[in-house]
Amino acid sequence: MDNRAIGVFDSGLGGLTAVRQLHRVMPGEDIIYFGDTGRVPYGSRSRRTILEYTRQDVAFLNSHDIKAIVVACGTVSSVALGVVSTENSIPMVGVVKPSCYAAMRATKNGRIGIIGTKSTIRSGSYEAMLHTLDPSIHTIARPCPLFVSLVENGRFSADDRVVQLMVEEYLAEIRDYGVDTLIMGCTHFPLLRDAIADFLGGGVTLIDVGAEAADYVRTFLDPAERQQGTTEYYVSDDIESFDEHAEMFLGEPAGVHAQMVDIVSYGKERG
Amino acid sequence: MDNRAIGVFDSGLGGLTAVRQLHRVMPGEDIIYFGDTGRVPYGSRSRRTILEYTRQDVAFLNSHDIKAIVVACGTVSSVALGVVSTENSIPMVGVVKPSCYAAMRATKNGRIGIIGTKSTIRSGSYEAMLHTLDPSIHTIARPCPLFVSLVENGRFSADDRVVQLMVEEYLAEIRDYGVDTLIMGCTHFPLLRDAIADFLGGGVTLIDVGAEAADYVRTFLDPAERQQGTTEYYVSDDIESFDEHAEMFLGEPAGVHAQMVDIVSYGKERG
Repeated sequence: MDNRAIGVFDSGLGGLTAVRQLHRVMPGEDIIYFGDTGRVPYGSRSRRTILEYTRQDVAFLNSHDIKAIVVACGTVSSVALGVVSTENSIPMVGVVKPSCYAAMRATKNGRIGIIGTKSTIRSGSYEAMLHTLDPSIHTIARPCPLFVSLVENGRFSADDRVVQLMVEEYLAEIRDYGVDTLIMGCTHFPLLRDAIADFLGGGVTLIDVGAEAADYVRTFLDPAERQQGTTEYYVSDDIESFDEHAEMFLGEPAGVHAQMVDIVSYGKERG
Repeated sequence: MDNRAIGVFDSGLGGLTAVRQLHRVMPGEDIIYFGDTGRVPYGSRSRRTILEYTRQDVAFLNSHDIKAIVVACGTVSSVALGVVSTENSIPMVGVVKPSCYAAMRATKNGRIGIIGTKSTIRSGSYEAMLHTLDPSIHTIARPCPLFVSLVENGRFSADDRVVQLMVEEYLAEIRDYGVDTLIMGCTHFPLLRDAIADFLGGGVTLIDVGAEAADYVRTFLDPAERQQGTTEYYVSDDIESFDEHAEMFLGEPAGVHAQMVDIVSYGKERG
């Protein structure tokens, strides 16, 4: 039994989709969540900047008493996790590996689609992992650069004509490729699930990468002893708009009282 | 004659629309441009965070030998300029006042529309200035939260169906209000000029706030002696994507060679 908390972070609010699943499958765990709302989005920034921001996010979580870190961000998992996991001794789980396992279990025809931010798709992280698991698998990956902005602005309804047009544009080639499984490679994307499902049709399994990461953590983590854990939320911009939008990602009234963090003061040699 | 440079900054690339006009009306001036590409967009962040970022941007420009600062960002001009201009002795020009002067000159029916980011519209900056200039003026202001993301992703063509739908949604009430002048209150928006003009019709004058700020600077600035000035570009993310996109805002081949800046190291007591 290990009563220390689980640290979870994302560039913004998307990682709350992983917190939601952690609450479901490991209700006894304490969670420390950090959302870098003062610098979201990460997905259109350079590798160098994403790495710098990630080091600060990890340093902040490490300033708490935690037993593992869930990188609930497709961009960070794809671009920076390899480097920062060698710099830290704490176990770190990204979203790429767990969701590739899930996609391999789901696919019947061996054709898997991947969507993500620009940086994620440029990194080739999901394809590389899928081909490690099975070199004969067929993949098609497409960046969806405007999805994060749409979702962060509360636009994800399947009835929204702009959402429909963007889904159509970004996913047309993936549909035509005949995939039976789609990795929604960014923790913001599950909010677009209905719009994506409407376009691709019911035969395609949609993989929620935040939820898969949360499920995966359970397989190796020494659990907490208590019945009901608590969750603390930290953000780098004002807490007001976080409180307002958190429910949309958590899927339930949050009663969230977040605290603001000066994130750039972490992860640097100070003095 | 004053040969010191003019400092210009924006949350990202939008401020280059002001640089473009400065090049045109004051070709002899040296320009130092800073674009906070590592933390763009500002328009959806809190007042507190925008103020913190602005202080760092100003401190960076002040580390050069400059004679004035052009705040080529609608959000910063609306939310933070009042505070930072009292903290600094250097002359600072935002985009709000010059574009309100221009709108007053342009309007015939006394009905002026304003569009901007969420933070800009929430601040009420343009309406307040217009009503100071003429209390009888009629205004209507609407936030356009997705315009910056669209433009930064290179989507601004008047033929783009998504652009058309967003313009229609954001500007329908403004059109119905019968304005004859529209302040495009964010330096990103001039790229959407054609799409906006198509929707509003030819009878509406569109005010480019970056260009107006540049024109205004000329009216009070002690000019440089030289014929042809130089421009230095600085950004807070990698320079690669800046070089790639700068031309779209400058309206000409940029030949830009930007330099990367550690912006958080400015504007804080260091020791």
